[in-house]
This record gives sequence, structure tokens and C-alpha cells, in this order.
Amino acid sequence: MKKIIALGILALSVAGTASAQVKPEDQIKYRQAGYSFMSWNMGKIKANLEGEFNAQQVQAAANAIAAISGSGMGALFGPGTEKDIGNVRTRVKPEFFQNMDDVAKLATDLNTASNNLVAAAATGDKAAVQKAFGDTGGTCKACHDKYRAD
Amino acid sequence: MKKIIALGILALSVAGTASAQVKPEDQIKYRQAGYSFMSWNMGKIKANLEGEFNAQQVQAAANAIAAISGSGMGALFGPGTEKDIGNVRTRVKPEFFQNMDDVAKLATDLNTASNNLVAAAATGDKAAVQKAFGDTGGTCKACHDKYRAD
Repeated sequence: MKKIIALGILALSVAGTASAQVKPEDQIKYRQAGYSFMSWNMGKIKANLEGEFNAQQVQAAANAIAAISGSGMGALFGPGTEKDIGNVRTRVKPEFFQNMDDVAKLATDLNTASNNLVAAAATGDKAAVQKAFGDTGGTCKACHDKYRAD
Repeated sequence: MKKIIALGILALSVAGTASAQVKPEDQIKYRQAGYSFMSWNMGKIKANLEGEFNAQQVQAAANAIAAISGSGMGALFGPGTEKDIGNVRTRVKPEFFQNMDDVAKLATDLNTASNNLVAAAATGDKAAVQKAFGDTGGTCKACHDKYRAD
């Protein structure tokens, strides 16, 4: 099991070595920060699709989502981060750590979708952004539905 | 004064329109998430400079820092975000909102430095990354020293 988890983490992460020094409670905080900041940027794109479309803002938001998604967040799900640590709460389900191959696939899906979103945003075409935005949101939801508690 | 603040926010932000719906307490949370995630990525680059240098990890980290920096975070310093809101704490000093021209300059400095860091990371040259990393950290510190309470 340990080996499977290690491989899964590796698949999620660009390289785990340098991040090993981050304390488990800080890993939880950093991963929540990353998802939270992605969420703000998804919200901005949604608002642009529903209201006035500012291509430059959409592009900047897409870049942030893709870069965070590609930053090796797997390193933030290290040993000890499976449950709350003091008042640092996590909504991750135990199943996450038992299905690292699936998690790695879902993470790759997010990477792919968010890179497609960057490409769509670069064209400035609203319909293309709408499609890529839906796909990206779908990859977020796929992971939340399986591995995030309510 | 209001006009000066509005101009400063605009300079920091790619476009403020779509973000106007974000509640002040959420603006504080999102901006803290962005800075926190940048901090994690700065830490990874530091660890790479001090230990084994993984060019791919450094590049991914630099991309995240630059994309967050370029995502229009000025929109997260809207009216009502000058002080704590309930248990949502902020360390921003009142001086921040009274010097938006200076804040905008500091934000531009971070943008420039982090884009230079991306360029340095893309070369894979450790010395170039070291220089650009120092410059980027300097722009963080410049703003913290002036506008962040201890």
C-alpha cells in the first residue's frame, strides 16, 4: 500500500523532494489555498461568461488556474494530511489516499482541461472559453464528488 | 481620495468588473490564499536552490507565482477589506489603501520580477534562477515591510 501511495503522489507531483520539509498542517493549508485561488479564478471566468466578456481578465484567470494545477500539488497530500490536525481542518476523504491511481488520473484531467482553457482564452473567443470552462469545471467536480466530504 | 483608490485598484487589477460580486470577507480569504500559494512555491524554489536542483519543479513553481501575481489581485482589496471581518483576519495596514499609486508600483514590480523568474526557470540555469528568485523575493519583502503588519 505504501508503495502505491508513493507512486500516486509522484504522479501528481512534479517532484516531491524539495517539498518534503513542509509540515503536514502547512501542506493542508497550502493545498486549500491553491484550490481556493483556483475557485476565485473560475468564478471570474463564470462572471465574464454571464456578463461583460473581458478577454484579458479571462486569460489571466485561466493562466492562474492552469499554473496552480500544474504546480505539483500532489506533494501537499503527504503522510499525516489525511485528517484534521488541531484546528486545521481538511475535507479530504480517506478514499483519496486509497485510490492514488484514480486521483492521479483526475489530476491529469484537470491539468489537461485547464491548459485547454488557457488555449481557448488566448483566442479571445467566448464560445471556446465557454466549452473549455465547462470541461474544466467538470474535472473539479469529478474529484470533489469522489474525494471531498461535504 | 475615492478616485485615487479606484485608480490604484484598477492599476493592480486586470479588470475589476466581474469581481465586484465577491464579498469583502471572501476577498480577504482569496488574497491570502494567493499569497500563501505563492509562498509555498517560493519555498520550493528556495529548497531547489539549496539542495538538488530540479529544473522542472522550479519552472512549475515560477509559473504559479507569476500567474497568481498577474491574476488581478487588486480586485481583492475592495471596500470593506481594510480590517478584520468577524474571524476573518487581515494583516494589511491602513497605509496600503492610502498609497495606491505606490501599491500599484510594488505590484508591477512583483509582476515584472516573477515574469523574469519564469524566463530564468525556462533556461534551467541555476545561477539565473538564483538571481531572479532574489529579485522576486525582494519585491515581496518591499510590500510586506511597508504594508503588512507583523
